Amino acid sequence: MARKFNFSAGPAMLPTAVIERAQAEMLDWNGSGMSTMEMSHRGKEYMSIATKAEQDLRDVMAIPDNYKVLFLQGGASSQFAAIPLNLLGDKTSADYLNTGMWSKKAIAEAKRYCTVNIVADTSDNGFTTVPTQAELNLNPDAAYVHYTPNETIGGVEFDYIPETNGVPLIADMSSTILSRPIDVSKFGMIYAGAQKNIGPAGLTIVIIRDDLLGNASANTPTMFNYATHADNDSMYNTPATYAWYMAGLVFEWIKEQGGLEAIAVVNKRKADKLYAVIDSSDFYGSPVAKNGRSWMNVPFTLADADLDAAFLKSAAENGLITLKGHRSVGGMRASIYNAMPEEGVDALVAFMKEFESSQA
Amino acid sequence: MARKFNFSAGPAMLPTAVIERAQAEMLDWNGSGMSTMEMSHRGKEYMSIATKAEQDLRDVMAIPDNYKVLFLQGGASSQFAAIPLNLLGDKTSADYLNTGMWSKKAIAEAKRYCTVNIVADTSDNGFTTVPTQAELNLNPDAAYVHYTPNETIGGVEFDYIPETNGVPLIADMSSTILSRPIDVSKFGMIYAGAQKNIGPAGLTIVIIRDDLLGNASANTPTMFNYATHADNDSMYNTPATYAWYMAGLVFEWIKEQGGLEAIAVVNKRKADKLYAVIDSSDFYGSPVAKNGRSWMNVPFTLADADLDAAFLKSAAENGLITLKGHRSVGGMRASIYNAMPEEGVDALVAFMKEFESSQA
Repeated sequence: MARKFNFSAGPAMLPTAVIERAQAEMLDWNGSGMSTMEMSHRGKEYMSIATKAEQDLRDVMAIPDNYKVLFLQGGASSQFAAIPLNLLGDKTSADYLNTGMWSKKAIAEAKRYCTVNIVADTSDNGFTTVPTQAELNLNPDAAYVHYTPNETIGGVEFDYIPETNGVPLIADMSSTILSRPIDVSKFGMIYAGAQKNIGPAGLTIVIIRDDLLGNASANTPTMFNYATHADNDSMYNTPATYAWYMAGLVFEWIKEQGGLEAIAVVNKRKADKLYAVIDSSDFYGSPVAKNGRSWMNVPFTLADADLDAAFLKSAAENGLITLKGHRSVGGMRASIYNAMPEEGVDALVAFMKEFESSQA
Repeated sequence: MARKFNFSAGPAMLPTAVIERAQAEMLDWNGSGMSTMEMSHRGKEYMSIATKAEQDLRDVMAIPDNYKVLFLQGGASSQFAAIPLNLLGDKTSADYLNTGMWSKKAIAEAKRYCTVNIVADTSDNGFTTVPTQAELNLNPDAAYVHYTPNETIGGVEFDYIPETNGVPLIADMSSTILSRPIDVSKFGMIYAGAQKNIGPAGLTIVIIRDDLLGNASANTPTMFNYATHADNDSMYNTPATYAWYMAGLVFEWIKEQGGLEAIAVVNKRKADKLYAVIDSSDFYGSPVAKNGRSWMNVPFTLADADLDAAFLKSAAENGLITLKGHRSVGGMRASIYNAMPEEGVDALVAFMKEFESSQA
């Protein structure tokens, strides 16, 4: 058994300690005689797991009491429709920032339900920058403002939280949630697919201010209505019980690491090391403006793209896998979520220096 | 470590051999250096797992080539909306059989999207019988006919497949799929939440005849559009990768048992043993008509309901757990899906005889 350093953008590495614990508990959780995946979601054993996971997430993120935390299915992609269906109310338009591939997908789906105002757009520069606050053409009549704080594919991350002057701010945090402390009270709703910093794919976390619940459009499927899930503690139907359990183990692990403040220190150091080697010579390059560089997803290119295949092959031989860039961007991408140990980044940095030397 | 006999209606027992294999592969699948839950769904390792799982399900159920098999999120409850949204086409009504709690939920959601004709209704007798073919008042203009072949809560199972004279037949098989061979070609669509006979909760299987795809209503969320998922081999977005992997292990296990023919022989024997002890004295009773008794979910009552608590407590002390009936029905319910070993039913039968004797 040799665990590799897996730089996948998601599903992604989970902490080895978490997987080892899940392995140990696999056949018999806590003397119950059942695996957690065999438990009735309404039984006392599973309810204790679910309740603790929610409380640990609330603790870790310091989520205010007037926010509901929902454990849903369907991925961030389902929320692209659920957001306008739930949040338009009696308004007819919403503001969207277009800063990458995931913004684009959210916008395309929202257009099917409302008028979408594109209030910032970085497509002209290939989604390599972050718009400034002054560049946002926000509409006071918008039902909400939607943005993607970290674009997984482009590797572009906002270095500030947009000020929306009372209009609810909605954030797809799939690839940045739990990477550092954030002020949840600045947001109307935060959502995230689990498969980067939370747990296995198939679970989606929605954190929503409670005054935004209860205004779903008449044609909203019951399972897309956030109020349905809030009223039933995410157990209106059978939730993704095992993924929820695994997420709970990850939240415990974050606490053990010292919480998000400690996690952020490590994440910044990991990112700094990787950008330093990229910037240290003309052999490597980063397409992203320096103030918009993601801590979590680091795309980089070789000046000679003909070497890409050799780079990836040699990296894999050194236990550094899933480094190929997204098909829409090319080059390489190293996703370095919370579970990627600093040793993994150190190994990648060392390999990048060696590979450059070997080509000199 | 002592595994118990868990009679939960779902999430439910999985075969111990399957969980042991998942445990062994947990940290490093097949020398990949990754857990299956850490793999990119678009990587070659995971694609091989996903493709094999679908093929094994096709083999086991003998699914004809003109049916698509989708691995979705959202549970059967999401399909309650997706079915009218996808299948109404230019029609305005659908036929529904009302035979239990899950039928009722499907009907309530469908009414939000179309005219629902209730073409059979057993609510008058408390959902304890199966309507006969002659009793079905089917409408030739219905977009489809929907029914629930096995009602998990009531323990009522159809002993025939309704003839719908060319109108697509849609079946919620959540609690009966894979319990025996079925003729898929009789159905327009079969769907099932995974958490009974397939795998962990958070995965939903949809088997749909390909001519029924492509007619979704304009307001259908993209993630509820079956054509979206069919066109992308269930990878339009990140699927529930770990649950899909576990389902694949279950499909392999079914093959190892000798396929559905062999599984059906064991299932019938298990059910027969349990109904025999229920019918053997007036101490126990079954609320369900004999021709409608489920192989999978066996509700039963004690003539003296004051003994229910003592029965459940003593059963649990004997390693027989999760036998309490659904709150809407009361009494007891033993769910005996494929993964419940015959030894578990034997142990329950022996306990029931002993408990009766102890009260004599």
